[in-house]
Amino acid sequence: MVSDSSRRGGQIAGFENTANEDGSNGPGRILGGTGLSRRQLLLLVGQAGGFAAVNAVFGALTRGAAAAELPMVPLEGARRVSVAILGAGIAGLCAAYELEALGFDVVLIESSSRLGGRNWTVRGGTEIREFDSSQRCGFDPGLYFNLGPARIPGHHSTVLGYCRTFAIPLEVKVNESRMAFCRDAAIRGGRPVREMQVAADIRGYIAELAAKGIAGRSAELGLNDDERERLVGLVRAFGDLGDDDRFTGSIRARRLGTGVLDAALADEPIELGELINSKLWQVPTLFTEMPDQAATMLQPVGGMDRIVAGFAGTVRGPVRSRVAVERIRHDESGVELGLLELCSGARSTLHADYCIDAIPFPLHRRIDHDYSAPVREAIDAMTAHRFFKVALQMGSRFWEERYGIYGGITWSDDDITQIWYPSEGFQSAKGVVLAAYCWNDEVSARWEGLSPTERLEKAVVEGERIHPEYRAEAENGISISWAKVPNLQGCTFAWADDDVDRFCDRVRAGDGRVYFAGDQVSHLPGWQEGAMQSALRAVSAISTRVRSGA
Amino acid sequence: MVSDSSRRGGQIAGFENTANEDGSNGPGRILGGTGLSRRQLLLLVGQAGGFAAVNAVFGALTRGAAAAELPMVPLEGARRVSVAILGAGIAGLCAAYELEALGFDVVLIESSSRLGGRNWTVRGGTEIREFDSSQRCGFDPGLYFNLGPARIPGHHSTVLGYCRTFAIPLEVKVNESRMAFCRDAAIRGGRPVREMQVAADIRGYIAELAAKGIAGRSAELGLNDDERERLVGLVRAFGDLGDDDRFTGSIRARRLGTGVLDAALADEPIELGELINSKLWQVPTLFTEMPDQAATMLQPVGGMDRIVAGFAGTVRGPVRSRVAVERIRHDESGVELGLLELCSGARSTLHADYCIDAIPFPLHRRIDHDYSAPVREAIDAMTAHRFFKVALQMGSRFWEERYGIYGGITWSDDDITQIWYPSEGFQSAKGVVLAAYCWNDEVSARWEGLSPTERLEKAVVEGERIHPEYRAEAENGISISWAKVPNLQGCTFAWADDDVDRFCDRVRAGDGRVYFAGDQVSHLPGWQEGAMQSALRAVSAISTRVRSGA
Repeated sequence: MVSDSSRRGGQIAGFENTANEDGSNGPGRILGGTGLSRRQLLLLVGQAGGFAAVNAVFGALTRGAAAAELPMVPLEGARRVSVAILGAGIAGLCAAYELEALGFDVVLIESSSRLGGRNWTVRGGTEIREFDSSQRCGFDPGLYFNLGPARIPGHHSTVLGYCRTFAIPLEVKVNESRMAFCRDAAIRGGRPVREMQVAADIRGYIAELAAKGIAGRSAELGLNDDERERLVGLVRAFGDLGDDDRFTGSIRARRLGTGVLDAALADEPIELGELINSKLWQVPTLFTEMPDQAATMLQPVGGMDRIVAGFAGTVRGPVRSRVAVERIRHDESGVELGLLELCSGARSTLHADYCIDAIPFPLHRRIDHDYSAPVREAIDAMTAHRFFKVALQMGSRFWEERYGIYGGITWSDDDITQIWYPSEGFQSAKGVVLAAYCWNDEVSARWEGLSPTERLEKAVVEGERIHPEYRAEAENGISISWAKVPNLQGCTFAWADDDVDRFCDRVRAGDGRVYFAGDQVSHLPGWQEGAMQSALRAVSAISTRVRSGA
Repeated sequence: MVSDSSRRGGQIAGFENTANEDGSNGPGRILGGTGLSRRQLLLLVGQAGGFAAVNAVFGALTRGAAAAELPMVPLEGARRVSVAILGAGIAGLCAAYELEALGFDVVLIESSSRLGGRNWTVRGGTEIREFDSSQRCGFDPGLYFNLGPARIPGHHSTVLGYCRTFAIPLEVKVNESRMAFCRDAAIRGGRPVREMQVAADIRGYIAELAAKGIAGRSAELGLNDDERERLVGLVRAFGDLGDDDRFTGSIRARRLGTGVLDAALADEPIELGELINSKLWQVPTLFTEMPDQAATMLQPVGGMDRIVAGFAGTVRGPVRSRVAVERIRHDESGVELGLLELCSGARSTLHADYCIDAIPFPLHRRIDHDYSAPVREAIDAMTAHRFFKVALQMGSRFWEERYGIYGGITWSDDDITQIWYPSEGFQSAKGVVLAAYCWNDEVSARWEGLSPTERLEKAVVEGERIHPEYRAEAENGISISWAKVPNLQGCTFAWADDDVDRFCDRVRAGDGRVYFAGDQVSHLPGWQEGAMQSALRAVSAISTRVRSGA
């Protein structure tokens, strides 16, 4: 996936603004047959794609200030400006793409052999290497699994803008199916119940409490009789209460199989006490209320790495993969990077006018950098979360045919926490389910301590408690514990909630000629939208500064 | 689409069990080249597809009794049994398919020139004829619109089972987008608000009332201190209340554009008084709580009429289109039907051993039938609802690019009531929106009184109140008022709620050798699942009876 720098004809050496045969500046590769210099092509690309993308992206942000900040005219004049980008994840790729569109020269430094960072789609044959294990994905042709980001909310206009730019087809990512299950030892002795049941019952009980809250309080609520009557109607409808304001079950939690040829029957409601004592009461009623998880969620057809491919197919600057950054020095004239070729062990120095540092902050502990004390404090304060995923290829899509579940999420109080049913390939022969995933570092640590084989077994054992057909249907599987992936050593890098505001602002202002990017410097850690918007902000800052001659 | 009976070689005349050259019974057409008689082929088809389908369908119903009822072995012996099916909508087609699979001879009588009934997908060139108007659909190639049924819930296992049988690809029908709008004159002076706002605010206010309902009621609620504390936590989380149990707005109704590079900001909540006085308070909080509207909803890729095509491509019996049923007589030996060829005006009589009547009951007023008094009472008691739809082809998908809306429904207090954004073709060039649709007969009557041109204008005027780009983007459109479509004269035929139980049971028992089908004789009027399950029930009744020699 990554173009090795050696195959790029040693352009790194010429990165610092050397003149080329065609009179242009920069690496100056003549493109076969077109007669266009690289720079001329860049300008064309910029005008045709890059600027439009930048424009669409910033236009869609509803952040007028940012849009005004970003100069839309490419650099002119004799001197070209170079930017070294550290980390070829989504932020680095996005920055490279937009900087090139603006006429900058770009070099991408990536310590792994892949582009995309956590945006990683595995297919049959993909290798996953952790510190102490290696797995080879055994999926059948056509099946895939997104190890990292897997969903795009409709308001993540930057990500969706690039999907439009790169003509990446989108389909719905089903983030909730009311047919999916909730399983909690506290509810009905651990027997899985449909999400529609939990949702209907919680609404019913809360509405019943609300009806009590209205009783005798018309004056306090400032309502006249008519309004009070409407409010009572609203509350009754909300919870499906009886005329006596009691909740005794709802056909919204319909007993499946009823309601077509015969009247719909409600299942007995779950006892309020059971709901209160379960870990799961909130999931079906809260999860998709969060704007970043609310319908409509989308996914690229064929895998999230279509976005990586979109950038990778357009970025012209050199990508130096398997190269670690060991040292960062910067002053008023530029940035000097000490690099280590991981394969050969060779060391080299790279100079650039500016730098965008999108390396996970926790990994800066092993980098000798000269960032200012306030920036260092922010970097050192960041936590690397340890999220994981387990995926299983199933021999049939039994969840569709037998349970009527088309996409969506089953929630469990076991360590698997979630089962995601695939949103693609409905009613096809096979499918890959996400068999375990959560955002709890303690639970993650338990999965991390297992070998890949043990993880699959654990996922099957806990999944069987919901779908007895799990063991018979599971054909193969893979897992990732991001904390054990050498170039990342974590998944979702974030400050404590109380620190986000001050550290985010501090770090985003940059340090001399270095700017910072990645979802880590946004209020949306773990989301590509945060990575891209942070990258655009850094691009905007550099571009503004260069143009103003600072 | 419909095979004219004349092109079927006059098989109707031989419908009543005549012997054929090949020694088999029935219409006995030799299929070119295969050497298989029609009957032999039926048996093959039955074994390969039909039975499997029946089995899968009934197995999935979770209605063991029904499954046991249906004989799975084809008819044997010399005598073939004929069934006349009145109405080639989904119920009629489904019954024909399954009866043929069981070895019956089938003739389908359809008064229109189309198969599928209300399952009707229009594309460029489709003609829509109402009593007093005719429209020709002007959609660009590739665009389509489902005039009738447009969504399939995950638990409608019969419909989904046939999609599997016919290998019809499915995709998600987005039935709710929290990015879509609600527009009500009572809320913020008619300024559209995002659905996420209405949903978050209603939950907030109800939770606030519930918190009041808990206060001081621990004993009454039967909770100990620990449980009371958990319940308070549940209620606060449910509504996003502050520690003082007050609702003052939620970032679940996030101000869009915040929450990525900066902290998320909540919009000011809508006043409780405004919500109470609006017509729309319930929509975002109730609609998708109903099991038949809850996620995951599905649609066939390319149009709902793929299901019609699936049946039509398999049914072998004659289909007599443009033929009206004028008279129905039945006794212990069979059924006699008086038919009128609508094109030629020719009258004829058809005899069959059994009949499945799937004609909308309100249309029986113009049929001279001899059904028993109790059945006649039920038939006469049914109401024809008058639903309509309006669709507009838009020159760009501005709702996606400008508003972040990918599928889902905007709700309005104007007569348009709903705007559905297409669930297919995300980010493609154009799209067809459902521009008006409701289930209110009074509102429907207003649309019905307009010419097709006036309907489009009304849809644009009311749609502009939500999307100012409506007029500029609308390229063409079509509409249907089902009450004015000659062969149906309504959409959704149903009894009053109080009558459903008794009438449904009464009619489904059949009348002599006549059985009744259609969503009208189910508890799910307006849904294909009701149509199909009623058809399977009728097939089962006939098959059981024939086998038992009754």
